[in-house]
Amino acid sequence: MFINDIVIIGSGNVATNIAFALRNIGKNILCIYSRSPEKARKLAGNVSAPYTTQLDMLPAKADLYFIAVNDNAIVDVTARLKGVSGIVAHTSGSVSMSVFENVIADYGVFYPLMHLSSEKLMDFKSIPLCIEADSRKSFCALQELACALSDKVFPVTSAERKILHLAAVFSCNFTNLNYIISEEILKKNGLPFDMLHPIITETANKIRNSLPSKLQTGPAVREDLEVIGAQYKLLDDFPQYQKMYKLLTEIIIQKKKDNEL
Amino acid sequence: MFINDIVIIGSGNVATNIAFALRNIGKNILCIYSRSPEKARKLAGNVSAPYTTQLDMLPAKADLYFIAVNDNAIVDVTARLKGVSGIVAHTSGSVSMSVFENVIADYGVFYPLMHLSSEKLMDFKSIPLCIEADSRKSFCALQELACALSDKVFPVTSAERKILHLAAVFSCNFTNLNYIISEEILKKNGLPFDMLHPIITETANKIRNSLPSKLQTGPAVREDLEVIGAQYKLLDDFPQYQKMYKLLTEIIIQKKKDNEL
Repeated sequence: MFINDIVIIGSGNVATNIAFALRNIGKNILCIYSRSPEKARKLAGNVSAPYTTQLDMLPAKADLYFIAVNDNAIVDVTARLKGVSGIVAHTSGSVSMSVFENVIADYGVFYPLMHLSSEKLMDFKSIPLCIEADSRKSFCALQELACALSDKVFPVTSAERKILHLAAVFSCNFTNLNYIISEEILKKNGLPFDMLHPIITETANKIRNSLPSKLQTGPAVREDLEVIGAQYKLLDDFPQYQKMYKLLTEIIIQKKKDNEL
Repeated sequence: MFINDIVIIGSGNVATNIAFALRNIGKNILCIYSRSPEKARKLAGNVSAPYTTQLDMLPAKADLYFIAVNDNAIVDVTARLKGVSGIVAHTSGSVSMSVFENVIADYGVFYPLMHLSSEKLMDFKSIPLCIEADSRKSFCALQELACALSDKVFPVTSAERKILHLAAVFSCNFTNLNYIISEEILKKNGLPFDMLHPIITETANKIRNSLPSKLQTGPAVREDLEVIGAQYKLLDDFPQYQKMYKLLTEIIIQKKKDNEL
């Protein structure tokens, strides 16, 4: 089965990026759904597709229905798609594929492992796409579409996808918290955050050539108790960051002792 | 005063990068010191300079003596440089400039805010160089040299440098710990770490156009308690990471409540 006619449900960051990416490879966007008439009209206009604000008005037949809405709306949308002819796939990192069981005939998951923003469209070529499906037939169809969009397509089960999502929370969401804390500490001392841009870029680039467990640097891995003590004290005005500094330093020191670094 | 004749004390990551960078802008490296004859010979050979393994054999007169040794060796090296004619500057993020007081006549600090590795030499043009000195004369000399090496030269006091170093621990050392934890969780589940490369790069790139406090994403900032609970449970085998997940999630939720995100 070759996917050509596609319905997109949603008009947020993921839906917008997917709509543009599909249009760019010449797919036919049958219809875009959004609760918001403004957002529906805007996205549909940008990719030259029809739109609707009513789920009941969606075509009853398509090759693929993308559900790219908030996690907590997926169940409701799925119920409204009962009986459609075509593969139904959601794009969430944390919702199991089993959400479709006993409701949808052919289904799957199509999860882009990337921060997507409607304000900055991304080239899909280098975005890992994680694919899962209820049957070999649905899987092959989704995989073919994914390979047309990206060079990095992975078969990933629902359980694995949750692990990937958790790993991304550490590597990205918690990393951004590190950046926020730096921003705050620097600002309080009248220093510009952009002084850290080069070293942050270097930290992220280094892991392309070596595993992070081979790359740990800093006072904790050196067990430099003098610097650790002085830095802990510098955080006296930030008790939560102090707690965090202590815990993360302990984790690094323990990993070093266990020869994991 | 124009700096041309330079002595480099040390042969590690910082010393090696600085030696090559100085040679590349045509400075005259008078002598390289290292305790290790092999390392001294290797670095000196690479930058066509003489070397010694004895501090007492260093030239008594130079425009600049760079002390690029471990933090805990700076005091000892400084004592041995008593009486030299020329500016003495260390390259450490965490050692105060006052280490030179009453020992050295003209002194300063020349701190590159970057992970430097002797195995991968860096172009200094985009490395922030933080400069401090005991006098206007020494400062101007160090600043002129720094500007010949880099486009990003900042006057930074010892107190500010410690703050920068602390911020770099959060943004870089603790971020690498996030990568390590991701690597470990993925490995345990048979997933390759490099699936995260694109989203890690994107996370680091995004802060070039927007402050991190405007960029937080993920289950914590959405206060998505269902995903937070499920992810916490996925960490059952890693009690320390669970503690970390809880603390960092609490910090993000509180910042959101305080309208800081």
